[in-house]
Amino acid sequence: MKKLIKNGTIVTAADVYEAEILIEDGVISAIGHDLSAQNAEVIDVKGCYIFPGGIDPHTHLDMPFGGTVTKDDFETGTMGAAFGGTTTIIDFCLTTKGEPLKKALSEWHEKAKGKAVIDYGFHLMIGEINEEVLNELPDVVENEGVTSLKVFMAYKNVFQADDATLYRTMMAAKQHGALVMVHAENGDVIDYLTTKALEEGNTDPIYHALTRPPEVEGEATGRAARLAGLTDSQLYVVHVSCADAAERIAEARRKGIDVWGETCPQYLVLDQSYLEKPDFEGAKYVWSPPLREKWNQEELWTALRNGNLQTIGSDQCSFDFHGQKDLGKGDFTKIPNGGPIIEDRMTILFSEGVKKGRISLNQFVDLTSTRAAKLFGLFPQKGTIAVGSDADIVLYDPNVERTLSAETHHLAVDYSAFEGMKVTGEAVSVLSRGEFVVKDKQFVGKPGTGRFIKRAKYGQLTSTKDAAKQTSN
Amino acid sequence: MKKLIKNGTIVTAADVYEAEILIEDGVISAIGHDLSAQNAEVIDVKGCYIFPGGIDPHTHLDMPFGGTVTKDDFETGTMGAAFGGTTTIIDFCLTTKGEPLKKALSEWHEKAKGKAVIDYGFHLMIGEINEEVLNELPDVVENEGVTSLKVFMAYKNVFQADDATLYRTMMAAKQHGALVMVHAENGDVIDYLTTKALEEGNTDPIYHALTRPPEVEGEATGRAARLAGLTDSQLYVVHVSCADAAERIAEARRKGIDVWGETCPQYLVLDQSYLEKPDFEGAKYVWSPPLREKWNQEELWTALRNGNLQTIGSDQCSFDFHGQKDLGKGDFTKIPNGGPIIEDRMTILFSEGVKKGRISLNQFVDLTSTRAAKLFGLFPQKGTIAVGSDADIVLYDPNVERTLSAETHHLAVDYSAFEGMKVTGEAVSVLSRGEFVVKDKQFVGKPGTGRFIKRAKYGQLTSTKDAAKQTSN
Amino acid sequence: MKKLIKNGTIVTAADVYEAEILIEDGVISAIGHDLSAQNAEVIDVKGCYIFPGGIDPHTHLDMPFGGTVTKDDFETGTMGAAFGGTTTIIDFCLTTKGEPLKKALSEWHEKAKGKAVIDYGFHLMIGEINEEVLNELPDVVENEGVTSLKVFMAYKNVFQADDATLYRTMMAAKQHGALVMVHAENGDVIDYLTTKALEEGNTDPIYHALTRPPEVEGEATGRAARLAGLTDSQLYVVHVSCADAAERIAEARRKGIDVWGETCPQYLVLDQSYLEKPDFEGAKYVWSPPLREKWNQEELWTALRNGNLQTIGSDQCSFDFHGQKDLGKGDFTKIPNGGPIIEDRMTILFSEGVKKGRISLNQFVDLTSTRAAKLFGLFPQKGTIAVGSDADIVLYDPNVERTLSAETHHLAVDYSAFEGMKVTGEAVSVLSRGEFVVKDKQFVGKPGTGRFIKRAKYGQLTSTKDAAKQTSN
Amino acid sequence: MKKLIKNGTIVTAADVYEAEILIEDGVISAIGHDLSAQNAEVIDVKGCYIFPGGIDPHTHLDMPFGGTVTKDDFETGTMGAAFGGTTTIIDFCLTTKGEPLKKALSEWHEKAKGKAVIDYGFHLMIGEINEEVLNELPDVVENEGVTSLKVFMAYKNVFQADDATLYRTMMAAKQHGALVMVHAENGDVIDYLTTKALEEGNTDPIYHALTRPPEVEGEATGRAARLAGLTDSQLYVVHVSCADAAERIAEARRKGIDVWGETCPQYLVLDQSYLEKPDFEGAKYVWSPPLREKWNQEELWTALRNGNLQTIGSDQCSFDFHGQKDLGKGDFTKIPNGGPIIEDRMTILFSEGVKKGRISLNQFVDLTSTRAAKLFGLFPQKGTIAVGSDADIVLYDPNVERTLSAETHHLAVDYSAFEGMKVTGEAVSVLSRGEFVVKDKQFVGKPGTGRFIKRAKYGQLTSTKDAAKQTSN
Repeated sequence: MKKLIKNGTIVTAADVYEAEILIEDGVISAIGHDLSAQNAEVIDVKGCYIFPGGIDPHTHLDMPFGGTVTKDDFETGTMGAAFGGTTTIIDFCLTTKGEPLKKALSEWHEKAKGKAVIDYGFHLMIGEINEEVLNELPDVVENEGVTSLKVFMAYKNVFQADDATLYRTMMAAKQHGALVMVHAENGDVIDYLTTKALEEGNTDPIYHALTRPPEVEGEATGRAARLAGLTDSQLYVVHVSCADAAERIAEARRKGIDVWGETCPQYLVLDQSYLEKPDFEGAKYVWSPPLREKWNQEELWTALRNGNLQTIGSDQCSFDFHGQKDLGKGDFTKIPNGGPIIEDRMTILFSEGVKKGRISLNQFVDLTSTRAAKLFGLFPQKGTIAVGSDADIVLYDPNVERTLSAETHHLAVDYSAFEGMKVTGEAVSVLSRGEFVVKDKQFVGKPGTGRFIKRAKYGQLTSTKDAAKQTSN
Repeated sequence: MKKLIKNGTIVTAADVYEAEILIEDGVISAIGHDLSAQNAEVIDVKGCYIFPGGIDPHTHLDMPFGGTVTKDDFETGTMGAAFGGTTTIIDFCLTTKGEPLKKALSEWHEKAKGKAVIDYGFHLMIGEINEEVLNELPDVVENEGVTSLKVFMAYKNVFQADDATLYRTMMAAKQHGALVMVHAENGDVIDYLTTKALEEGNTDPIYHALTRPPEVEGEATGRAARLAGLTDSQLYVVHVSCADAAERIAEARRKGIDVWGETCPQYLVLDQSYLEKPDFEGAKYVWSPPLREKWNQEELWTALRNGNLQTIGSDQCSFDFHGQKDLGKGDFTKIPNGGPIIEDRMTILFSEGVKKGRISLNQFVDLTSTRAAKLFGLFPQKGTIAVGSDADIVLYDPNVERTLSAETHHLAVDYSAFEGMKVTGEAVSVLSRGEFVVKDKQFVGKPGTGRFIKRAKYGQLTSTKDAAKQTSN
Repeated sequence: MKKLIKNGTIVTAADVYEAEILIEDGVISAIGHDLSAQNAEVIDVKGCYIFPGGIDPHTHLDMPFGGTVTKDDFETGTMGAAFGGTTTIIDFCLTTKGEPLKKALSEWHEKAKGKAVIDYGFHLMIGEINEEVLNELPDVVENEGVTSLKVFMAYKNVFQADDATLYRTMMAAKQHGALVMVHAENGDVIDYLTTKALEEGNTDPIYHALTRPPEVEGEATGRAARLAGLTDSQLYVVHVSCADAAERIAEARRKGIDVWGETCPQYLVLDQSYLEKPDFEGAKYVWSPPLREKWNQEELWTALRNGNLQTIGSDQCSFDFHGQKDLGKGDFTKIPNGGPIIEDRMTILFSEGVKKGRISLNQFVDLTSTRAAKLFGLFPQKGTIAVGSDADIVLYDPNVERTLSAETHHLAVDYSAFEGMKVTGEAVSVLSRGEFVVKDKQFVGKPGTGRFIKRAKYGQLTSTKDAAKQTSN
Repeated sequence: MKKLIKNGTIVTAADVYEAEILIEDGVISAIGHDLSAQNAEVIDVKGCYIFPGGIDPHTHLDMPFGGTVTKDDFETGTMGAAFGGTTTIIDFCLTTKGEPLKKALSEWHEKAKGKAVIDYGFHLMIGEINEEVLNELPDVVENEGVTSLKVFMAYKNVFQADDATLYRTMMAAKQHGALVMVHAENGDVIDYLTTKALEEGNTDPIYHALTRPPEVEGEATGRAARLAGLTDSQLYVVHVSCADAAERIAEARRKGIDVWGETCPQYLVLDQSYLEKPDFEGAKYVWSPPLREKWNQEELWTALRNGNLQTIGSDQCSFDFHGQKDLGKGDFTKIPNGGPIIEDRMTILFSEGVKKGRISLNQFVDLTSTRAAKLFGLFPQKGTIAVGSDADIVLYDPNVERTLSAETHHLAVDYSAFEGMKVTGEAVSVLSRGEFVVKDKQFVGKPGTGRFIKRAKYGQLTSTKDAAKQTSN
């Protein structure tokens, strides 16, 4: 059945205007005034913004970490996402050294199957480069629709790859059309600092932050950007947490290096002092990179506004405070890393960004949806409101005031990273491929309706240097 | 009568997609598939891109300079613009010290009247700040729709204002919602260097470039950006010609200062050696800032790509080689400054930018149209292809190959700055508010149909910090 | 009569060692162990450092300003200097537009005559460049021994020169072997800000600082450095007060531009809050550039330590709090600018610099004496302890603790800028050309014994780029 | 017997003056005019400069590398050094993982014993940090007089240490008063690039340079400097070869980090094209970091002049062209790394630096002798001409013109890196602790007379931040 959305204000990465949207077969078929509503369900959204569904390029659902598994899986995780206005996620598929990449992908497909309520894709972790990996990669990129590769510069002896591996991944990515993503922290130094902290009896959550100072992130970010320059390839730095790292990205971009930076809501509104909360509550805020001193926040907003950071990921990776985070009582290195952010990602950017005049409406859409769609090969199927695109649509009330809380969120995890925070704006209804997932703030979707999206290669449809080479054909 | 544009690929600053466009009453009324063509003229544009009409934020038509007047006026100038795909220009209205601002505006309205074939607006030069000027300004911004103010840091004893004037203009602009534009070159130093050059008998056109080295532009650009920071106001630097100045803008933006930069096609493809052409031909390339050493070109492209420069102006200001430029034979300071660029502005950006993979299609549209519309208060009436926007539309053949030449251009001036340059791509047809101005490469417009556009204040409808404050309401 | 100084530790810009110094005819004739003391007055300085006499490259003695004259003239001023360990000053000779440079120099010679108790030289202010000035300059530099030229970028309508004048002064200085000094603040902007402040009824001393923000100093410093680069000449920036300006100098030096920076004790230990002292006491701290926010202090120390700032001047310019500073009651622009610093210049650098581990002993000597001697053509006659150099020597007790105060200082002015500040270290005795001026903390000199020193041209005897060209011959 | 040096011009890091020097018991006992020459050998050095003996802080004598051993050992190596004006070297003592540090030191003492003709000290390589190393270090620093520790960031699987090791070495050095030195190149990336080059059949010497691009040096330099900042310790970067690395050091210094940089003569006058010499001659110029593109040279000179690089080492490490370098025929990775520079180190700096006006005489002395003496705890025993210092003295004819060649050098190695280069200036005679080693250009020394010098801790006698804390007591 058709749907006709009326009386809202459409916002894209470029435009803000009032018009009706006609949806047929899950796709936007027309935008205009006085469109024929014959046979269409009419949805009146007076007073609402109509945004393209958000794209969260950085989630960890159903992910094992340190002997436990994230509380939120593809069902509860994507439900939370949908309530927040996100209609596509790209989850990180972890690989195991010595095992085929596709084995890991199969496992991840299995995790999502029958559970996801919105569409999803996968990034693939590269832990080592050898003949097997190099042989498998072309097929992964060409046929599996997995066109982004993640390299960890931290988590020594777990995920960490050395610089040669990063370099070679970049060379392979360049050849096959993938985008390399890095977790940029100097793992060797962190490894020593954490060991030493424990030796000295410094076991509280705050030592998680103190053993990963901003310098080790700035250093690794600069190093990765240099390697991108040296290989003339493309790089995406995930979860930029501090001014130092943001500055390294800006510097590389000025030199013409094709580097992109993602930050996360938590770095924009929370700070290092949260790790000092009493009664082990600091553990709720333990993730990597850690929260930073408060002054970094405004620097990150500036980078979002002036274009030196380009996307917002959630780095969703939730563990219960009771029963999971407390594995690290008496030893901060055993606290499972991560937090529940997926649901509030867009809310925070809207409330703290748009409403407070730090970014424009167009930038909000670009940062939370369009840019990720372009960088990760989802565009224009996802990431915009345009004729022919999937009807992934958020109907957004910009004026409602509310308070974030674990009591009202839709994730399985037992706490909220933003507990008690007052925000303005809320997704009233959310459509995925033309069907309501959330309607009038109620969940009306169905686990398993979310589809895996094979993504296009880097540069084929994006606003980047290489992209231009192709879109201009 | 309605028009229906079919079979083209619509490109905006964010999107690229195939759809039909329905035009009614000069405005885009619908975009979709299989739109009803009843009563509509159907225009089949198979193989073409459909761009929003270009906006040239920097023209000097019918402008007096050094005892002569530009060859192209609002008739021939806007005809040339239209052939190049530009459907709106913003021309600089010069003022005279001691006379009312509105007197100058009246004069400029008079120049355009009955001549312009496309829509236009005016920037207003501020040569001095005094009580009269401060009293008149609010009305000019509020009611006259002139929301951008130009200050010259060069042309000593002619247009040049001192730093206090620039500072005060910024304060006034901030208060009233205008955007300050600067011509950033250190006029005092240039004045001395030109005097000295003439004293030493260095009278050839090349001395125009040698007496305005990039350092004086970089210096003045940095100075203006600092004053923008100090006043917490907004700044637009016109005709950035060199890496040094572009770097100053990037630096200011990184500090969170609201600074924007425009470059021009001539700086992207021509270089200082052109001023050394024999037989006084170098005079054809005399404008300010001058053409630079070739290596600057790629730096400017990088700044366009990474967002550190945001718009493309033409700085159109044409004087015949025979009869005007030759006023400066034997004295380069008497060569009327300027060149004919308005017609080829978009062509060069498309051919050298998009086609050569330096920028994407979306960036092309943003740089040549959307960003200027947002910065100068024309958006969303102009600058995009969206329902409700003026049907200012360019139908663009991306594959035609041709050679730029004075023999084929549509300006009155007797030479082309790009004579003999091979380019790819051409505007086939151009519509202004739904009416053809150029159709199948023939002029079908009519002088006087272009309308003066009152522009909105800075920040009201744009993607900027202040804009956000308002668009989010 | 000969003198033999025993048992001290000699410190130069390079060395620290224990040895005896033999002085004959006002000159150091030998340094060694067990030197023959025959016919020599033996001076035992056990526990003392032996420093070369300080050189204060920036004083204003007997200077008219705003309708009054500095309280300290060449007699009291040089006495204060001597007590602080300074044995040479270079005072600024102000010129008047339209009058011969040598007229001004004569006047300044007159001021010093019969009064100075230590040696002195003159810098010459350049307020305009015209044929007369250009004609006079070579003689001034060659024959008058005045080899440094000062240009003001601030004090609009009083001392301020425009950029063309600065540029031309640099060209002339380069040609004749002089060093251009600038007072770097944007005078146009300051002029407007002060006017506006008064209009708004903001008349207290603190508005002196608020109307000259660090950005106007940073801007002007960067501008001057660029012009030095453009002219390939040499530049010395006086009284650098803030991190912003220091950074501009470092930046220029990294590009290979021959730029030097001086800071002053007041900027290292006092801050902007002093201007807010009640009962108009803030006026005591009114000078230009103004005191800055406290965080700048450590940045300046870092620049001194890493070599990005090279000298310490006092900018001595004293006005009584009662009777002079109070001319500005109710109008901060009428407060005579300047403070009494000459006496405590070295004390503060030693106590806050050396004693607190921010700089080394060698750097102390270089910063307070040697570097100025080299830059201003006094070396090796002045500025070091070496055989053949003038016996300008300070015997310094590094351990005495005392409190700075107007009650104990030796200047005529009625207040101390450092009242109540506890310091460590004191000049016990001071010799000028082998004769005691201060002996065991008592004045034993005689007004008029100080001699005018004709200084060598820039680069002839210094550690600079150009210098090298010559010293290597 | 005493010696009296007459008629020369004494040059130190601060001074240039004419005086006599009296030497007693190997030490300078007096400097003055008309010193008593009773019982003294009088040495007339009319027309000569008298420099403090050079200190070469970077040599590899009798060093095993890739299956061979450097051609020059402590006998021929120090003879060459002496002919060039160097009177002290600090050689690198290599350690073996798992073996006691002192075992390595013993071995190195053995190498020098009975051979060195000038004084010497040792740096100690740190390849790993563990309990044994940490236990041994205090004694090494305190009692063995070895106060500088070298960490390699390159030579994977041979010397390379990881970042944690570097970090821990810095912490230990800070605690015990040692200076950490790094070879800054990203070894992981180089390892991959060399492997790949060989795989692709790229085996010629030029590939040595192409597989170690400047970016990998710039990256590692920046990384090491950051770690120094993070640990608040001191760092010395050896053999800075390119502008990129020099810039990283300048940047760190501006932030107040205690970082020092050494460059070498080869990087100042040779360039990457030398590696392309035919007939495998490129192998003569194979060392790490490699020679760079020519434009880097002037950037390095600028850094020397403005103080952003502070010392000149030779990185002497000589292998015969015939019989050693040719081990790498057909495989550039097997070419023993290094060249014969020790003899010409000061010559090149004088001829290309002082004579060509790039640095001053004082800077020459500071760069080749004084600064190294201060940084490495040899001062003031070595590194200056002052009463009480060792009479390590060079009598230098600044005007003799000659041609560098293997035919005339005094090393054992069979080629000269500077073959055919015309230079001006030569050490005529060289004294070590008051005894001639070279007299009138003839070797008059004796193997075994050179003594091992126990060096003071970092900061105790130097012009650095920490030093100041101590010298001011």
